Amino acid sequence: MSTAAKAIRQPSQSMVNGFDPARLNELPEPLQKNIRRRDRSLGPGYRLFYDEPLEIVRGKGVTLFDRDGNEYLDVYNNVPSVGHSHPRVIEAVHQQMQTLNTNTRYIQEPILEYSEQLLSTFPAELGHVMFTCTGSEANDLAMRVAKYVTGNQGIIVTAGAYHGLTAEVSSFSPSLGVGVPLGPNVRVIDAPDALRYSSDTVSLEDHLREQVRSAIADLHRHGIGVAAFIADSIFSSDGVYAGPTGFLRPIVEEIHAAGGLYIADEVQPGFGRTGEEWWGFQRHGIIPDIVTIGKPMGNGIPVAAAIFKPELLVDFGKNIRYFNTFGGNSVAIAAAQAVLDVIREEALLPNALEVGNKIVSELKAFSQDVEQVAEVRGSGLFIGVDLVTDRSTLSPNGSAATEIVNSLRRDRILISACGAQGNVLKLRPPMPFSSNDADRLLEGMEKAFTTLR
Amino acid sequence: MSTAAKAIRQPSQSMVNGFDPARLNELPEPLQKNIRRRDRSLGPGYRLFYDEPLEIVRGKGVTLFDRDGNEYLDVYNNVPSVGHSHPRVIEAVHQQMQTLNTNTRYIQEPILEYSEQLLSTFPAELGHVMFTCTGSEANDLAMRVAKYVTGNQGIIVTAGAYHGLTAEVSSFSPSLGVGVPLGPNVRVIDAPDALRYSSDTVSLEDHLREQVRSAIADLHRHGIGVAAFIADSIFSSDGVYAGPTGFLRPIVEEIHAAGGLYIADEVQPGFGRTGEEWWGFQRHGIIPDIVTIGKPMGNGIPVAAAIFKPELLVDFGKNIRYFNTFGGNSVAIAAAQAVLDVIREEALLPNALEVGNKIVSELKAFSQDVEQVAEVRGSGLFIGVDLVTDRSTLSPNGSAATEIVNSLRRDRILISACGAQGNVLKLRPPMPFSSNDADRLLEGMEKAFTTLR
Repeated sequence: MSTAAKAIRQPSQSMVNGFDPARLNELPEPLQKNIRRRDRSLGPGYRLFYDEPLEIVRGKGVTLFDRDGNEYLDVYNNVPSVGHSHPRVIEAVHQQMQTLNTNTRYIQEPILEYSEQLLSTFPAELGHVMFTCTGSEANDLAMRVAKYVTGNQGIIVTAGAYHGLTAEVSSFSPSLGVGVPLGPNVRVIDAPDALRYSSDTVSLEDHLREQVRSAIADLHRHGIGVAAFIADSIFSSDGVYAGPTGFLRPIVEEIHAAGGLYIADEVQPGFGRTGEEWWGFQRHGIIPDIVTIGKPMGNGIPVAAAIFKPELLVDFGKNIRYFNTFGGNSVAIAAAQAVLDVIREEALLPNALEVGNKIVSELKAFSQDVEQVAEVRGSGLFIGVDLVTDRSTLSPNGSAATEIVNSLRRDRILISACGAQGNVLKLRPPMPFSSNDADRLLEGMEKAFTTLR
Repeated sequence: MSTAAKAIRQPSQSMVNGFDPARLNELPEPLQKNIRRRDRSLGPGYRLFYDEPLEIVRGKGVTLFDRDGNEYLDVYNNVPSVGHSHPRVIEAVHQQMQTLNTNTRYIQEPILEYSEQLLSTFPAELGHVMFTCTGSEANDLAMRVAKYVTGNQGIIVTAGAYHGLTAEVSSFSPSLGVGVPLGPNVRVIDAPDALRYSSDTVSLEDHLREQVRSAIADLHRHGIGVAAFIADSIFSSDGVYAGPTGFLRPIVEEIHAAGGLYIADEVQPGFGRTGEEWWGFQRHGIIPDIVTIGKPMGNGIPVAAAIFKPELLVDFGKNIRYFNTFGGNSVAIAAAQAVLDVIREEALLPNALEVGNKIVSELKAFSQDVEQVAEVRGSGLFIGVDLVTDRSTLSPNGSAATEIVNSLRRDRILISACGAQGNVLKLRPPMPFSSNDADRLLEGMEKAFTTLR
């Protein structure tokens, strides 16, 4: 698949914003002690954030506290989407824990109530919800259904995509790096990087259409039919590509023409984070065949789901069925219901839009003359800042991003980075992030940017 | 693989003890209404238990309550292992929810404390724990590691095994039925069915050794090396085969000789349920390379884990790493710690052993002259009752099991069934099941058995 392959930037094998274990001796003694203890029990598969990892003991709203009582502004965690330790979620979980926590093989009314409310946030075409515990499980199930329904195996993803960690899902998550090989049935297309894409003759949309056509043709040449195109609707791990809206449409048209399904992975952009709509795909004016949701859904209580066009489940439901022991259990649903209620009652969508717009416009303003800032982009409270070595080459600058992330961390502002080269600052705070919180963030970033000049 | 294949009983495609949707119209109107509502939102992939499904609204200890206030003795649910709505778990979760619920990329002491305590229940060779949300994810991760470490793809399981629901794990879960094909790299051996195995010359142990040898040879003949043998240490879905202890040893010897790993799936038998030891494999006097744990771990808060010999993670940890967003988060660990504490403080292991032994011996006594009861077997509070058409043919009697299960349900005692033909009654109550609870169960079963005579 020469067209697409040419454009792939090989994701680095090391984790973006990961602590380098080789530098353990440079840390304060108490931290060293607990990291050694961690290494002994949890082993080398676990990673920590930041050059100087954090020991967190408490969280409230958009604030995290370390063991010395220091406060950190959380501009990173999307799981506690309605804020750390939100009283409504705490209370809902507590009530439910005192009452019942059981599985979906008994009838329970709350899951019906929640499912109906949840489905009402989706286009009418998406009529069934199936619950899992994690976004990975939701994507795993979505792909199982896609393969079953189409009878095909081929999967198309973007070059820096991340969809999860099961054996199946990691086989179509190129951002995991070369240590985790893509499946022989997986093809990658370019991320929708409008900043770096440049052509006088072919629009980005047409380029993406062409990429998908090539991927499909290559799959066919290998005797593989198309099961699905799956994409995070804001391309989080690719580097946060929120616009121009509409670029997903030609991709979906090509996939459908080839008999495949379009799976919208809303695990990251979902539940109103993008500010304009409940779901990221809605910004592109398209209707997925399957949607997967997760992270923010239960504010930290593990719950996730896949939403389907009902016709996709007729045979799968009959012949395969699906039972997830903890998936959608009583407590998970109670947490999810509380999150849904809070998002509505605290008007977190308009807040995400307003505060997000403010952050983007002010960041743009004060980074205008910072050569290493190529672009500030995003939607709502999902914002990326693309750092480069210089604006003429637009060469990704991962080390500048690492520097900024760690400089902010020292200033007690927590962000991270993403993108194939780790060069995109990722701002993705809990959704009750206020205008004042934005001010503190912006002040910190302006200061951090001075180190780049 | 003719030897093994010959003995495979094809699992039925319909769910054991599942409600048949075709009989919806026979149910009381309010139940029909909620099942229709359920079908509309959740779709056809969801199943309910029992001929007359239950609408459960509350649980306490070993008792479940339906919406009309009827009490049911729970002899089935192993997830609420320390009892429904246990105050210690409720309190631990509530405290933690009010404090912090975040992920493992920050240092947190409670996960270290818990991990150390958990690992102390395992043989010293098993030194690292990695957290997931579900047993499926734990088995998926275990198999990823097994394949990575051995460089091989071959998997060997028993004929009625269930290990989970991800794409990967369902490919080696034959109990899911013919709708879910086994992977081309998967071979099955007979379940260790001591009741039906009969030979004057070859012991069951030697028969299983021979089965594994054949499976390995067949894999090799197809150019496939052995990654792992994985087995539920009490063979729950095969039909509850607790003994004779020791039959796993020759299997493990053969697997190791072929360069594969032995993965003990303790998702069902683990956390003391078998009464004698914390983990089912310990009853067989063997040491696994990887152990997976789940269901009872957090009393319903989703948490699961894989435990490894540390040498298996050296390269995997470095080159692959693993991050599970909710896996081992603060609240999951708080719940798991409470469960561990309660198991110890309420002496639930000796209780499981004592009450389990009582149930087995009394069941044996009063079923002595029931022709359809071929065997009562189990360990601790994991008990199977093998029903047959008659004791001479030992032909599995799934319909008798369905009858007993539903007759007990009408008597407000909840059990289920397992085994390839659904012919084995499965008794697996929350662990604080008392001697009085056992009396009620036994009384109910004696009554139900009279319908078989």
